Amino acid sequence: MARTARRGRRGSQDTRQRIVDAALDTLKHEGFTGASARTIADHGGFTQALIFYHFGTVNHLLLAALDETSARRLAAYQTAVEQTKTLPELLQTAARLYREDLAAGHITVLNELIGACLAYPELRPEIAARVQPWVGFAEDVIQRTLADGPLAEPIPSRDAAFATVALYLGMQMLTHLNGDNTATDSLFATGERVAALLTTLQS
Amino acid sequence: MARTARRGRRGSQDTRQRIVDAALDTLKHEGFTGASARTIADHGGFTQALIFYHFGTVNHLLLAALDETSARRLAAYQTAVEQTKTLPELLQTAARLYREDLAAGHITVLNELIGACLAYPELRPEIAARVQPWVGFAEDVIQRTLADGPLAEPIPSRDAAFATVALYLGMQMLTHLNGDNTATDSLFATGERVAALLTTLQS
Repeated sequence: MARTARRGRRGSQDTRQRIVDAALDTLKHEGFTGASARTIADHGGFTQALIFYHFGTVNHLLLAALDETSARRLAAYQTAVEQTKTLPELLQTAARLYREDLAAGHITVLNELIGACLAYPELRPEIAARVQPWVGFAEDVIQRTLADGPLAEPIPSRDAAFATVALYLGMQMLTHLNGDNTATDSLFATGERVAALLTTLQS
Repeated sequence: MARTARRGRRGSQDTRQRIVDAALDTLKHEGFTGASARTIADHGGFTQALIFYHFGTVNHLLLAALDETSARRLAAYQTAVEQTKTLPELLQTAARLYREDLAAGHITVLNELIGACLAYPELRPEIAARVQPWVGFAEDVIQRTLADGPLAEPIPSRDAAFATVALYLGMQMLTHLNGDNTATDSLFATGERVAALLTTLQS
């Protein structure tokens, strides 16, 4: 009996994961407007009824998909950033992670859901809440990197973190609109140069 | 005959303007998803046929509305920025203009149309083209402000301009998501403090 219940729970977890994966895939390839219960079910090879059984609504499923990709990417950022020691290294890592985000479709998913807040204003606080861990992460990194530096005093880390996340979102949006990342690549290269210069000045 | 033709042209211009104003008003209050030919016509008190006669499609009308608010705001930015002499003054002016953008609904219109690129990918290059004058403007201002300063050498003005516009768009997006501008206000205050500090160091 207990074993059956456990197996049932695990089976249910597997199904849930399969639905979230299908939703992520659909968001990346068809966008928010293409991510209906029908297309997600078709992508994953299951029935629409399973979506409503596990998530209630398609929008709840799409938020779960954002949670999934966001958690994965935040973990990747945390691991990579822990290994950086200097500001130039940090910017190099940030540039690499940004390109990974782009390639992995994370940026597409985020853009699609932010855009969707238009038609569904009730999504706004949900998306805003999911941006907060990134502001917190940026704040931790900034505090650690700028601590004792000449910029720590005049720039509160909360403001710098907000600006970093805003810049990141804006860069995504412009890359998406322009359909290429030339400007972003150039900006990262400049960032690395300036960071190297700052480090020289500081030491 | 010539006079009738002129009057006809002026009448046509007036009608066009009335339609654009109604579209702007509708975008600000009903969002992109609410800005149908019917709601725009209702807002302006004219028939839907006039929209199609003057603009062909509703999306063409909405792009004309973005052109209108964008041109107005760019003119306001140019006039205000011409009167600033120092970096702290420039940031104070930028903060004031940003708050005006928010109050005037310009930011709403831009956000709504960027979000609309989801359902209408053909809008993407159109919106991207309308962001370009802002990057050009930012580049001019940055070149003028940073010229001969210690930052002019390591930071190409094109990169700084791209970053400024990206930051601005991201700030808008987060303000929109959070439903308040506390974080933006705090960031501007910090910006002004840092600018004042930089100016002291430079002189």
